[in-house]
Amino acid sequence: MSSSALNTQLADQIINSISDVIGPGPAGLHEPKFHGNEWLYLKECLDTTYVSSVGSFVEQFENDLVRYTGAKYAISVINGTAALHIALLLAGVKKDDEVLIPDLTFVATANAVAYCNAVPHFVDSEERTLGIDTAKLRDYLNKNTEKKAGFCVNKITGRIIRTLVPMHTFGHPVDIEGCLSIAKDFNLTLVEDAAESLGSFYQEQHTGTFGLLGILSFNGNKTITSGGGGAILTNDSSLAKHAKHLTTTARTMHDWEYRHNEVGYNYRLPNLNAALGCAQLEQLPLKLKIKRELTDRYRKAFSLVSGVKLVSEPANCFSNYWLQALLLDKEDIEQRDFILAKTNEAGFMTRPVWTLMHELEPFKNNPKMDVKCAISLSKRLINFPSNSIIREVGSA
Amino acid sequence: MSSSALNTQLADQIINSISDVIGPGPAGLHEPKFHGNEWLYLKECLDTTYVSSVGSFVEQFENDLVRYTGAKYAISVINGTAALHIALLLAGVKKDDEVLIPDLTFVATANAVAYCNAVPHFVDSEERTLGIDTAKLRDYLNKNTEKKAGFCVNKITGRIIRTLVPMHTFGHPVDIEGCLSIAKDFNLTLVEDAAESLGSFYQEQHTGTFGLLGILSFNGNKTITSGGGGAILTNDSSLAKHAKHLTTTARTMHDWEYRHNEVGYNYRLPNLNAALGCAQLEQLPLKLKIKRELTDRYRKAFSLVSGVKLVSEPANCFSNYWLQALLLDKEDIEQRDFILAKTNEAGFMTRPVWTLMHELEPFKNNPKMDVKCAISLSKRLINFPSNSIIREVGSA
Repeated sequence: MSSSALNTQLADQIINSISDVIGPGPAGLHEPKFHGNEWLYLKECLDTTYVSSVGSFVEQFENDLVRYTGAKYAISVINGTAALHIALLLAGVKKDDEVLIPDLTFVATANAVAYCNAVPHFVDSEERTLGIDTAKLRDYLNKNTEKKAGFCVNKITGRIIRTLVPMHTFGHPVDIEGCLSIAKDFNLTLVEDAAESLGSFYQEQHTGTFGLLGILSFNGNKTITSGGGGAILTNDSSLAKHAKHLTTTARTMHDWEYRHNEVGYNYRLPNLNAALGCAQLEQLPLKLKIKRELTDRYRKAFSLVSGVKLVSEPANCFSNYWLQALLLDKEDIEQRDFILAKTNEAGFMTRPVWTLMHELEPFKNNPKMDVKCAISLSKRLINFPSNSIIREVGSA
Repeated sequence: MSSSALNTQLADQIINSISDVIGPGPAGLHEPKFHGNEWLYLKECLDTTYVSSVGSFVEQFENDLVRYTGAKYAISVINGTAALHIALLLAGVKKDDEVLIPDLTFVATANAVAYCNAVPHFVDSEERTLGIDTAKLRDYLNKNTEKKAGFCVNKITGRIIRTLVPMHTFGHPVDIEGCLSIAKDFNLTLVEDAAESLGSFYQEQHTGTFGLLGILSFNGNKTITSGGGGAILTNDSSLAKHAKHLTTTARTMHDWEYRHNEVGYNYRLPNLNAALGCAQLEQLPLKLKIKRELTDRYRKAFSLVSGVKLVSEPANCFSNYWLQALLLDKEDIEQRDFILAKTNEAGFMTRPVWTLMHELEPFKNNPKMDVKCAISLSKRLINFPSNSIIREVGSA
């Protein structure tokens, strides 16, 4: 068969597999569902007039997150980007530091580093987890950094590499043990970008709770949503206290005085959004069950398709399967884009993974290691509808 | 009478005046009220599942703001602080620039300048408007700056003074014509901090629409609220486009590609919050009517009290009277704090104005002009319950 005929065949098989599982389109990538106490809690906000910075849902949401994730502290904020910004500041990131982040991530990871006036330094991924390749990173740091006054210093730029930020891609846990070991050996603080992985566990411990700080996101496209929202997780009480302080304009408390002891941020989650988050979090176990059931069905459907494989959770991990992904065998942009066009035409929303950070205009001259695997993944990954089954089972 | 007896007398008179107008306490400074389509619109968000970055309320809210304020463009964002941050960036504020802001303001004004890595430079206020004293500022700039390559340069620090940010204190319009004239003569961009002044007009033009850019806030304590929320106003189409771009992660549009051409921000207003904002904005005329009626009643009540006067809108201005304020005749912190204690004890929430910016730890070494009037005002201003009458008339 010609290459074009092969592409058509593969696109058709992908469309049929999706449609076998979730029925005819249209279907988006990830649509929120509200089948719980959302109405009740939002109405309570209006009835009590507590929609903004005062109200009990913020505290309830934070307590619920603590209970669910096992982190000692959770500080709710306005979105995942804000959470990451503050987590990086608290992890000690300073002007002109470098911060190691995956080349394959959503732009928020890099932007949050830029907000600290620091420099994102891009790291390669591995195909097994879609996250940081820890073996390769360790080797790279051994060769390209030196220890000076206890700090890990980039030999080429002379800048301190302060922090490592692994990200759990599409909800699949990264090799967090490998990351922790690198952080320890190279004296880096570890901030976990768990924006996509609420409900994902690395060996029975919730993602986002391994590093000094971790962050979550509750954007509308996430497993649960608060409209806009995010959270900082930590086990350190003084960091938790400082996170709350920094995200609420750094006001020092007094009955009536407005005094602020450092440059603070207006990142507080409104009570209205926290109310929605509380109702959604109650439904998380059911949502995860349905997402994993969907994954099983997709796995069966795609097992018959050659040229592509369904991305699965790494060994010893439990993934939320936030965003379903196919990995094409071939690094062939033409094939990928053909499939993207055909699936979208057929009413099934698909998209490639994010443009790699080192290819973006604001970060194109940033330091990076060889990112061969990230480049390969970026040519081969396709996300596709990830919660449409919910419409069929009708229960979450 | 002894000073302490006099203070007791004044505190009692203030408590009686407030209670004559709004009845017995407790009463907060400003509580939101929801008597319109709030529930209808929030419910619509849940029913359609559009709570986050997709949904029609964001566009509707922006259109409604354009219609109400007369600005050509309104870009909704997550809060007033975020609006100010982006407005300053768009006004050309760069690292190490100085930005003229009132010494008497909420800390967000100064923080937003700091987010741009620029330096807040503090300006005195006048008693008539509680805003920037334009005569004094002009004189100060004449003496302390020089024009270099067209820029206004601080003779002492050598830094470019890039932007002037007047703020409409408690909703009372500043001398915006004086500010515009200074901006023109000293080649400064003008960004109006109208966080407190939605519904306030300078001569019949809405505050926030005079400068290159202006900003609004819809925090829970404001005249109308969206839980958390803010907006950027401008008449310049390319600035409006850029504001929308920067506040939504600077993504360049393509059906499926995630490409970002500059460091962007996640400042988008969620649809859920915009829905609340739409319902609240519909009720703004009624809320203003009630706030002004409350003011009339307070004016009558306080006309009999000596030692204090009610702050009123400047000539040729229409104020939203967002936050009621009393101005004590005497600069006497002991007297002020006694009144604050007594009124709060009586169930009427009161507070002094914000701590002056130059007194805050992060800004204490910043450049400033002589701020004699701001210091005097900070010792004499007391805010008190500003929308409690609404409970009585029961209609907004």
